[in-house]
Amino acid sequence: MNIAFIGLGQMGQAIAHNLLKGDHTLTVFNRSRDKAESLLQAGASWADTPAEAVAEADVVFTMVSDDAALRNITLGDFGFLTALPEGGIHVSCSTISPETARELAEQHRQKNTEYVACPVFGKPEAAQAAKLWICTSGSQSAKDRVGPLLELIGQETYDFGDDVGAANVVKLAGNFMIGCAIEAMAEAFTLGEKNGVDRKAMWELFSNTLFASPVYKNYGKMIAEEAYQPVGASPALIRKDIRLVLDTAQQSMVPMPFGMVVFQQLTATVAKGIDNIDWAGFAGEVSENAGVGKR
Amino acid sequence: MNIAFIGLGQMGQAIAHNLLKGDHTLTVFNRSRDKAESLLQAGASWADTPAEAVAEADVVFTMVSDDAALRNITLGDFGFLTALPEGGIHVSCSTISPETARELAEQHRQKNTEYVACPVFGKPEAAQAAKLWICTSGSQSAKDRVGPLLELIGQETYDFGDDVGAANVVKLAGNFMIGCAIEAMAEAFTLGEKNGVDRKAMWELFSNTLFASPVYKNYGKMIAEEAYQPVGASPALIRKDIRLVLDTAQQSMVPMPFGMVVFQQLTATVAKGIDNIDWAGFAGEVSENAGVGKR
Amino acid sequence: MNIAFIGLGQMGQAIAHNLLKGDHTLTVFNRSRDKAESLLQAGASWADTPAEAVAEADVVFTMVSDDAALRNITLGDFGFLTALPEGGIHVSCSTISPETARELAEQHRQKNTEYVACPVFGKPEAAQAAKLWICTSGSQSAKDRVGPLLELIGQETYDFGDDVGAANVVKLAGNFMIGCAIEAMAEAFTLGEKNGVDRKAMWELFSNTLFASPVYKNYGKMIAEEAYQPVGASPALIRKDIRLVLDTAQQSMVPMPFGMVVFQQLTATVAKGIDNIDWAGFAGEVSENAGVGKR
Amino acid sequence: MNIAFIGLGQMGQAIAHNLLKGDHTLTVFNRSRDKAESLLQAGASWADTPAEAVAEADVVFTMVSDDAALRNITLGDFGFLTALPEGGIHVSCSTISPETARELAEQHRQKNTEYVACPVFGKPEAAQAAKLWICTSGSQSAKDRVGPLLELIGQETYDFGDDVGAANVVKLAGNFMIGCAIEAMAEAFTLGEKNGVDRKAMWELFSNTLFASPVYKNYGKMIAEEAYQPVGASPALIRKDIRLVLDTAQQSMVPMPFGMVVFQQLTATVAKGIDNIDWAGFAGEVSENAGVGKR
Repeated sequence: MNIAFIGLGQMGQAIAHNLLKGDHTLTVFNRSRDKAESLLQAGASWADTPAEAVAEADVVFTMVSDDAALRNITLGDFGFLTALPEGGIHVSCSTISPETARELAEQHRQKNTEYVACPVFGKPEAAQAAKLWICTSGSQSAKDRVGPLLELIGQETYDFGDDVGAANVVKLAGNFMIGCAIEAMAEAFTLGEKNGVDRKAMWELFSNTLFASPVYKNYGKMIAEEAYQPVGASPALIRKDIRLVLDTAQQSMVPMPFGMVVFQQLTATVAKGIDNIDWAGFAGEVSENAGVGKR
Repeated sequence: MNIAFIGLGQMGQAIAHNLLKGDHTLTVFNRSRDKAESLLQAGASWADTPAEAVAEADVVFTMVSDDAALRNITLGDFGFLTALPEGGIHVSCSTISPETARELAEQHRQKNTEYVACPVFGKPEAAQAAKLWICTSGSQSAKDRVGPLLELIGQETYDFGDDVGAANVVKLAGNFMIGCAIEAMAEAFTLGEKNGVDRKAMWELFSNTLFASPVYKNYGKMIAEEAYQPVGASPALIRKDIRLVLDTAQQSMVPMPFGMVVFQQLTATVAKGIDNIDWAGFAGEVSENAGVGKR
Repeated sequence: MNIAFIGLGQMGQAIAHNLLKGDHTLTVFNRSRDKAESLLQAGASWADTPAEAVAEADVVFTMVSDDAALRNITLGDFGFLTALPEGGIHVSCSTISPETARELAEQHRQKNTEYVACPVFGKPEAAQAAKLWICTSGSQSAKDRVGPLLELIGQETYDFGDDVGAANVVKLAGNFMIGCAIEAMAEAFTLGEKNGVDRKAMWELFSNTLFASPVYKNYGKMIAEEAYQPVGASPALIRKDIRLVLDTAQQSMVPMPFGMVVFQQLTATVAKGIDNIDWAGFAGEVSENAGVGKR
Repeated sequence: MNIAFIGLGQMGQAIAHNLLKGDHTLTVFNRSRDKAESLLQAGASWADTPAEAVAEADVVFTMVSDDAALRNITLGDFGFLTALPEGGIHVSCSTISPETARELAEQHRQKNTEYVACPVFGKPEAAQAAKLWICTSGSQSAKDRVGPLLELIGQETYDFGDDVGAANVVKLAGNFMIGCAIEAMAEAFTLGEKNGVDRKAMWELFSNTLFASPVYKNYGKMIAEEAYQPVGASPALIRKDIRLVLDTAQQSMVPMPFGMVVFQQLTATVAKGIDNIDWAGFAGEVSENAGVGKR
């Protein structure tokens, strides 16, 4: 297949490399070209605009930072919507609102192209190892056609049906749940710390027993050690996601007290100018409010 | 060894049966004798009071519902503190406050007996299968002596040092973290539900990937299906535990916003008279507040 | 002066009547004409569109329900922006976001007309009695010119300077503070109720002493008596305002834990389908969660 | 009458001076004698213990810092319970839990003396000016007998019936409501500040209109100016009161989300070691979390 890939951050690069491992042609675009270097060396072609990238594409993958960026590369001046050949499929991996997904899907429909929501779970290392967990929603025929490509980049695909917004709701819910696990561990470990119990000892217990799972192991280690490097995603970036969670909750009339706490902790972190840490570092708000801040 | 066991609820019975499987003599006491039947048939002896139960004991296990009950069987009119032979060890498995643990440990010290904090994690089925996760704290020599007994009842022991209150802090923190996972799933699944995503489909994704762990699998299933049976522990019982969490947080100056939300949800559940469900059923508060309550 | 008035809800009608008491010509528009009857009888003229209403206006007052409605009457197909004569002033009384205010002000500037933010505090009865408290912001010259009109409708004007969004921030903050007083009384009176203290007795004490003020007297009476009639403003309407508060807070990085609680209570109220009560009725959420709901 | 007065902090001294203005004999006790000087000069007598102070008393007033202190002066080694002549009345002005009030009332009953709950609202200056607002509960006959004394110290008395704990619930609810007003203003003014609106301008509007009342005027000024002097009561002292609020709420099954937020802000303030400011200074938590802290 001819594949276009737009958006070469840490995640995008890793996914694009794995797509190249299949027997496909890859054309890439990114705002700054330097991020494309390793892909070009591996055989990808460069395009100067999103529109140019999709000129002969069967499928275009996108992985950008927010709704506005996705709208821009799709609908903007050099956006690819009108350039994508009829029958083409947009595989949209970004974490965006379900509304934007539904609106873009409608735009594609009018052009006789298709939109598949395809947000992914996993850190950059998981993306490199083709171990992402993939959520999909959209028309079955389109999902069937891109299925073999998704096998190149992830370890498992969970489908959420026809409504193109569904997978985005699930992705937002997942990030929210990670945020909840971070806050829960932050409170638990700080309670331990101020009562003479070692943070790491607590983490070892919980992450090996009741909560033995990637989130509690990986984020938990950072929180136990209060060392928030490397930066998987910044507080400001994930704050944007949690805002989408609350917006979605707001529109659908779901009170989310935990969502509000997590958003508030992230807001305080960003408001204080703390940015060069992984977003799990909002756990430091709990420590500071307990008088034992180290961030 | 001669072992006494006091407190034969679901958990206590299961643990006591496993102790019997070692080559030990077991004497049991419970407020109502009927709960002792299967143990008596399996070879245990009955005692009419806690004091009588420990008359020749090397070790006494206790597993009761709260601080007051533990004080009563230890220090009350027929309590065993003065009856436990010198050198005897109290293995205290109940979920209680660290203060009560420290105070009882001091009382034992004055009688030349010892106190080991030994709260456990796991549902009744895990207790039956000798698969509990055990937390200990207290004097090393006492922990060494009871170590072989703990191997009979659990799959792994995590030690938290000399301070006898430490293991209780960890147990409270663990119940708090379970409560947080319940609330997080309740909010996430309800967000999904009101946006057209199936609750069970979300649970299957999360409990098999990012959060693949006993808590998300077991409690998550209840929350996904909104079916809160069987009752592992009632809302009122765990509300007591979360109150101990907040009391401990209060005394040690730790603001716990999640702790307060969980406590509030449990309080609303109990205040509404909802009691014949597992405590995970406080998840129903989220559904009700979103206008889709089914509890 | 020639005055146009657009938006004849309870508040708008009352304000328009008071403007008529000055020696001014009044032309009115409302989506449904029946609300204009009493004004037409009092001497006002009817216009079929917002644009027609302002055709000869020196000043146009607007009082509509939200940002979208205001945009529509100003910028929409029959909107008045292009019809307002040069030098005309838009006195904008609606509760809207500061962003919308700033954007509309810019649009007016480009047409050589002016925009004055002019949100008001007070219930419909206060509007009738010309006892509103008025907040203004915008260019000084425009505020000077409309000053005599504002004296016809309010008891006092508080000015917040040149930035046209400022008065809107203040209005939003005020509605937020009213919401906080409602929640605070709801919790306090319910605490009393469940401890044997009469709700009304508490209200009488507090509203005559520490908190002797219109908000605690008026809203407090409803909350004490748990009788949420008449409907000054519906839960859904004010929920919109509190959402604007949180949006503004979000954009300016202000964590607002009280704001989030109030929003959540209103969301639960609306999600449960409770709508035919004054918004103070969200106080019923507290009672319900305490097991003594009467709403 | 012969009056004893125990507890000569800022509030106690002011009240005792006003009692002296009646034609009564006054005997005083305080932990440190220096606080009694001005009263002794004004004609009061000194007693070396609480018990000695009440030896000939018709009425004993108490005003101490918490439940433990009140228990100590009443029931402790030199406590006055057994020394108070039969028929004597204990007028208890401290902010304590309703449980302690009920328990002490029972103890008095057994000695044929009486207990009247008599917490007061007002700052030290109000106490000096005999402008306190007084809440009472307890037996009618006892309240009738002390009525003339209460007229010497307050501007108005609100009675809450026979249950001696009732007035304490009301006092706790009042402090809670003040805390809510503080947090509400902190959030509102910070929202304004970060959106270009002057904190003091907002305070002037609100404290003169919708919220024109002592709490919004007095505490509001501190919050608007972010100057938390003089110290009417410390964060740690009022944190104790809010803890009593939450304890009472907990026992009576009342979820109080605002109560929890206020408690948390006070806890963070105390945990950070900030103590030499008025308790309204917990408003600084909001500013800090918005990145504009000045405390």
